[in-house]
Amino acid sequence: MADYIVPIRKLIDAYRRLPGVGEKTATRYAFATLNLSPEEAELFADAVIGVKRDIAMCPVCCGLSAGGECDICADSDRDPSVICVVENPKDVTVMEKVRGYRGKYHVLGGALAPLDGITPDKLHIKELIDRVSAGGVTEVIIAANATPQGDTTAAYLARVLEPYGVKTSRLAYGIPVGGDIEYADDVTLYRAFEGRRSL
Amino acid sequence: MADYIVPIRKLIDAYRRLPGVGEKTATRYAFATLNLSPEEAELFADAVIGVKRDIAMCPVCCGLSAGGECDICADSDRDPSVICVVENPKDVTVMEKVRGYRGKYHVLGGALAPLDGITPDKLHIKELIDRVSAGGVTEVIIAANATPQGDTTAAYLARVLEPYGVKTSRLAYGIPVGGDIEYADDVTLYRAFEGRRSL
Repeated sequence: MADYIVPIRKLIDAYRRLPGVGEKTATRYAFATLNLSPEEAELFADAVIGVKRDIAMCPVCCGLSAGGECDICADSDRDPSVICVVENPKDVTVMEKVRGYRGKYHVLGGALAPLDGITPDKLHIKELIDRVSAGGVTEVIIAANATPQGDTTAAYLARVLEPYGVKTSRLAYGIPVGGDIEYADDVTLYRAFEGRRSL
Repeated sequence: MADYIVPIRKLIDAYRRLPGVGEKTATRYAFATLNLSPEEAELFADAVIGVKRDIAMCPVCCGLSAGGECDICADSDRDPSVICVVENPKDVTVMEKVRGYRGKYHVLGGALAPLDGITPDKLHIKELIDRVSAGGVTEVIIAANATPQGDTTAAYLARVLEPYGVKTSRLAYGIPVGGDIEYADDVTLYRAFEGRRSL
């Protein structure tokens, strides 16, 4: 089959690097890009470069910042005695949906998976221990994903943080709110049963 | 809800301009972009700019070219007496899958939709008439989409090309190969019935 002309082929190949984007979707995106105005295309290209150029790692929580400490770490209105530990930078914004939470964050940069070579030294665990050992922290809430890797990470963190006398907790497993137990999988149901609360 | 930091928000907004991409998908793409190497991001941005900068309209067929006549128009091995008319530049590559076709193309740039303001002067119909009136063309195959707009366009073209004595034809409607008639819609079935061929 004849291929698209070079500039389009290059853009299709670039779009294919995005998650879940195959040849057909990438082609659709490439032709949509062709229909943007030159100004819109310029803004788009600049935004792609921008995420690499203008984003730094917050030296405190290891999350994303626009340079120096991130907004949450710099916010003196937030309670520094509670740290919510998440796997990825994106999860900070996800957790911020829990409007009641006014503590700080710590981004690990992934979850432990020793078989894939992701050992504790590959994550920002040392930085977390440094923050906790510096004092003033009373609780560490581990908001790792509900995956085997997340479980391993949570168990590991609970163990290494124990000497510092902080309370460690983990997000609850259970039936999603609005969920029908008929459609919950066995493991979720088991965890929900195990974690039942008296009324 | 707290929003993402500015460089990420800009990129999310840029991705949202792509067809079928909402907030969630755009966010996923933005974070995937963040994980590209600086070189990959540079290539991506350059490809976005490239489709606007390096693509011109072929002066003959009104399709896409990398400058001057497109490869198909410039190919002297292809039969100039047959022109396949398509709606969009992308359709040329689609039609090229029909490996047996060795004629030329003409890209209209859309389909007639007078109610939406797409009148004949908005499409590259004049250029098609010029090509046909210059002589040497014996058949015009109208490969417009199987939509009401495509039908209108095909009927219009057949009428305006009539004075030049060229044969005009249209792609057949019918059951897709491998398709089960049980799942064909009424209109397709009716068209397939109407267009039945003796064995």
